[in-house]
Amino acid sequence: MPSHRRQLHLNLFLMGVGHHEAAWRHPRTDPANLSSLAHFQRLAATAEAAAFDSVFLADGVEGPDPARANAWIGHFEPFTLLSALAVGTERIGLIGTVSTGFTEPYNLARQFASLDHLSGGRAGWNIVTSAGDRAARNFNRSANQEHAVRYQRATEYLEVVRALWDSWEDDALLLDRASGRLTDPAKLHEINHSGEHFQVLGPLNIPRGPQGHPLLVQAGSSADGRGFAAANAEAVFTAQQTLEEGQEFYGDLKRRAAALGRDPEGIVVLPGIVPVLGSTEAEAKALDQELDELINPARAIGTLSVLLGVDLSRHPLDAPLPPLPPLDAINGAKSRFTLVRDLAERDGLTLRQLVGRLGGGRGHQVLAGTPEQVADHIEQWFTRGAADGFNIMPPILPEGLELFAEHVVPMLRERGLFRHEYTGRTLREHYGLDRPANRYTSVNQ
Amino acid sequence: MPSHRRQLHLNLFLMGVGHHEAAWRHPRTDPANLSSLAHFQRLAATAEAAAFDSVFLADGVEGPDPARANAWIGHFEPFTLLSALAVGTERIGLIGTVSTGFTEPYNLARQFASLDHLSGGRAGWNIVTSAGDRAARNFNRSANQEHAVRYQRATEYLEVVRALWDSWEDDALLLDRASGRLTDPAKLHEINHSGEHFQVLGPLNIPRGPQGHPLLVQAGSSADGRGFAAANAEAVFTAQQTLEEGQEFYGDLKRRAAALGRDPEGIVVLPGIVPVLGSTEAEAKALDQELDELINPARAIGTLSVLLGVDLSRHPLDAPLPPLPPLDAINGAKSRFTLVRDLAERDGLTLRQLVGRLGGGRGHQVLAGTPEQVADHIEQWFTRGAADGFNIMPPILPEGLELFAEHVVPMLRERGLFRHEYTGRTLREHYGLDRPANRYTSVNQ
Ligand SMILES: Cc1cc2nc3c(=O)[nH]c(=O)nc-3n(C[C@H](O)[C@H](O)[C@H](O)COP(=O)(O)O)c2cc1C
Ligand SMILES: Cc1cc2nc3c(=O)[nH]c(=O)nc-3n(C[C@H](O)[C@H](O)[C@H](O)COP(=O)(O)O)c2cc1C
Repeated sequence: MPSHRRQLHLNLFLMGVGHHEAAWRHPRTDPANLSSLAHFQRLAATAEAAAFDSVFLADGVEGPDPARANAWIGHFEPFTLLSALAVGTERIGLIGTVSTGFTEPYNLARQFASLDHLSGGRAGWNIVTSAGDRAARNFNRSANQEHAVRYQRATEYLEVVRALWDSWEDDALLLDRASGRLTDPAKLHEINHSGEHFQVLGPLNIPRGPQGHPLLVQAGSSADGRGFAAANAEAVFTAQQTLEEGQEFYGDLKRRAAALGRDPEGIVVLPGIVPVLGSTEAEAKALDQELDELINPARAIGTLSVLLGVDLSRHPLDAPLPPLPPLDAINGAKSRFTLVRDLAERDGLTLRQLVGRLGGGRGHQVLAGTPEQVADHIEQWFTRGAADGFNIMPPILPEGLELFAEHVVPMLRERGLFRHEYTGRTLREHYGLDRPANRYTSVNQ
Repeated sequence: MPSHRRQLHLNLFLMGVGHHEAAWRHPRTDPANLSSLAHFQRLAATAEAAAFDSVFLADGVEGPDPARANAWIGHFEPFTLLSALAVGTERIGLIGTVSTGFTEPYNLARQFASLDHLSGGRAGWNIVTSAGDRAARNFNRSANQEHAVRYQRATEYLEVVRALWDSWEDDALLLDRASGRLTDPAKLHEINHSGEHFQVLGPLNIPRGPQGHPLLVQAGSSADGRGFAAANAEAVFTAQQTLEEGQEFYGDLKRRAAALGRDPEGIVVLPGIVPVLGSTEAEAKALDQELDELINPARAIGTLSVLLGVDLSRHPLDAPLPPLPPLDAINGAKSRFTLVRDLAERDGLTLRQLVGRLGGGRGHQVLAGTPEQVADHIEQWFTRGAADGFNIMPPILPEGLELFAEHVVPMLRERGLFRHEYTGRTLREHYGLDRPANRYTSVNQ
C-alpha cells in the first residue's frame, strides 16, 4: 500500500446527542446529555483517542422562538464548554463559533487568547457573521445588518483581532526578577485601530498565545463568504451534496486564495458528512429511516422556515415547495438557501421529503452505509480534489462517533490516509499550518 | 466553646502568584505560574479542600500602558479560566468579574448560565462598571462614561440579564421523546426589554441554570456603588482599613438593603485581608518587609497614578503627596481614591511610604502576624458587626494560601466559626442564599 504524504484531517462537529434532527428521540441516545458536561468530555476523549485534529462547537445568539416550535442549537456556550474540555484532553484542537456581529473584538481576542493559553495552543475560531433578525433583536437592533455589510464588519473585526494578538511580542513578558521588570514596554504595542466600525487602542491584556493566533476557521459559502474565506480562513467548513459540487467549491476556494497571493495549501477544506453506520448497508439505511421517522414535522418546518426566510408552517406537507424568493432578497445564510432550493428542485421534493432529507444533516451529505463505504467516500473526495479532510457529524452521539472511531478510522489508516497518532502539539500543527509571525517583531533581531 | 449558629464565609481572591505587588519577585514564588493553568488548579483544589465558599478572579479590560511600566492584572480571562477550574473541583464556587461597560447583556447572561450549568450551580458574577479611559478606548469610545451613567447602565444591564435568566422556566425543557416536544413553548418567554441603553428580545439560548441566577457580587464602595450593592448584590467585596470603618460600611450597607425591603442577611459583606503569616509575629513582619523591599517604585507609581488620576511619575519619592483633585473630579474608582487619599493624609505618608503600604494589598488591610493573630482579627470583625466573612488575599501564592488553610482555618473551626465541610452543593447554598423564583412561573401551579 503506498504511503501518501498528504494526510487527511478530521474534525468532530459536536452537536448535543447527534446531528440528526431527531437524535434526541432515538432510543440509543440520552437526551439528558444535552446539558451534561460528562457527555461532551466523553466525546472529546473519544475523538482524541482516535487522533482527530479537533472538535468544533457551533453557536448561535438567539433562543427558540416561543411562537414556533423550532430547532435550537446550543445550550453550552463555546468559550465556557471548550475551556472545560481543555482540561482532561491534551492534544485535540478546540474550535468554537463566535459571531462578529454582536461581540467586541477586544473581548473576543482576549477570550480566544486565554483559551489558547490554557489549552497549550489548541484554540480555533469559527468566524460567523450571524444571519437572522431575531438574533439582531437581542442586541439593540431592530433588524440584522445587510449580508454585505456583515462581511465588511467581519473583515475589519478580524483586522483588529489579529493586530491585538500581535500587540504583545512573543518575548514581551520578561519576568525578570533581578531588575524588577515584569514586561518589556518596547515589546508592547498600542494598535491604534481607527476604522469604519471599530476604534481600538490596545495592547491586549494577555500575552501572545502559544499559537500566536488561534486557528481561523470559516464556513460561509456565498460569493462574499468565499471571498472572506479565501482572504482569511485557514480551515473551511462546507456543506456539499455531490462530488462535482465539492470539487467546484474546493477548486474555486484554492484558486481564490492563490489569486490573493496565499499558498493554497494554507487553506484546509473540510466538507461535512453524516456517517450513518451499519455493519451492512441495509442496517445503516434502516437506522437512517428510523431516525427520519422520528422527525417532528412541525419543529423541522419551523427550522426550515427560518433558514429559507419563508413561513412554511401552513404549507401542505405533501405538496412541492411554494415559489421561493430570489437569492438577492435573502439576507440570511445565502449559500444554505441556494443549497436547499437546488436540492428541492433537482429531486422534485415535497415539503415532507425535503424535511426528511435535511433532518439528517441540515444540508450536509448523509452517507448511510458500511464503514468501508464511508471510507471509500472519504478517500474519493480526498484524492479527487474535493476535500482536505472532513467535518464528521455523527447522526447520534456518542454511538455514531464511537462506531466511526472504531471502524472507519482504522481503514483510513490502513490506506495511509490518516495519522496513527498526533505528530504535533498545537491545533495549527495538526492542520499543518504555520505559526503566524508577529507584525511588530523585526525579522533581523 | 459555644457553637455559633452564624457561620463565616471565606472567598479566595485569585491573583497570579500573590496579591503583593512584588510577589513575583519573591524567591518562594514561581513567576511562570502567572500563565500556568496547573497553578490555578492547585489554588482551587487547596481552597476546596479547606471548604472555602468560593474562588474569585478579578478582571480588567485594558492592557498595560507601554508608556508607563504599570501593573497589569490578569492574563487568563474569567469565563475561560473559571470553566477550566470547574473541571476537577466539585463544590467550590467560581466567581468572575465582568464589566457591564463593554459587553452585551445577552452574551453575559449566556456565558454565566453556561458556566452555572457546567459547574453544577457554582457560578458567581462580580459586577463592575470599569473605570478608566484607556479601557473605554478599546471599545470605540474616546473616554469612559461618567461614573453615575456607568451605574445607571449597570442597573439596566442587570435588569436585562435577570429577565433573560428567567426567560426559560425551570421546566421549559421537556425532552419528551414520545410526543417529540423538546421544549414547552408556553414556558419560554420573550423578555421584550426596551430601555435607555438596551433593547433585548429574548428568550436566552440556554435553559435556566441550576442556581436560577448565578450569585451576584459587587465591589463598589462610592455612594452610587453602595446604592447599587444594597439594591442588587448578594455578596459584597470591600477594602476597609480599620474596624470602625468596617463597621460603618457593614452597617450602612445592611441598613440600605433593609430600607429597600431586602433581608439584610441576604447580603454577605466580605472585607479583604492580606494575611502575611509567620510562626512568630517577627517572622511575619520580616516577610512583609522583604516583600516591600522588592517593590519596583516606577511600576508601583505607574499603578498609583492610574488609580488617583494624577501623574506621579516625576514626583519626588520622599516628599508627601502633591495636592490631589477633589472627589467629584474623579471619574474612576471613587471609593478607592478616597481610601488612598485618607490613608496618606492620616499617616502623613511620603510617596515611597504610600507605595509600600499599598503594595501589600492595594488598599486592603495587611495583617502581618501569627495564625492566631489573624484568626483573632477575623473573629473580632465577624462578631463585632464588620464582616460576614472575608476575602482572603494571600501575599504570595500558593504558599500564603496553604499556610492559611493549614494554620488559620483549623483555628476558625475550633472556635465554631467556620464549617468543617461543605453542607450544600451550589454557591448560593454555601453563602446561605435562596435560589431566586422565576418571575414567569405562577406560584399556584
Ligand atoms: C459546518 C458548518 C458549520 C457552521 N456553523 C455555524 C455556526 O456555528 N453558527 C452560525 O451562525 N453559522 C454557522 N454556519 C453557517 C455559516 O457560517 C454561514 O453563516 C452560512 O453558511 C451563511 O453564509 P453565506 O451567506 O456566506 O453562505 C455553519 C456552516 C457550516 C457549513
Ligand atoms: C475585592 C475587590 C475586587 C475588585 N475587583 C475588581 C475587578 O475585578 N475589576 C474591576 O474593574 N474593579 C474591581 N474592583 C473595583 C470595584 O468594583 C469598583 O469598581 C471600585 O471600587 C470603584 O467603584 P466605586 O467608584 O463605586 O467605589 C474591586 C474592588 C474590590 C474591593
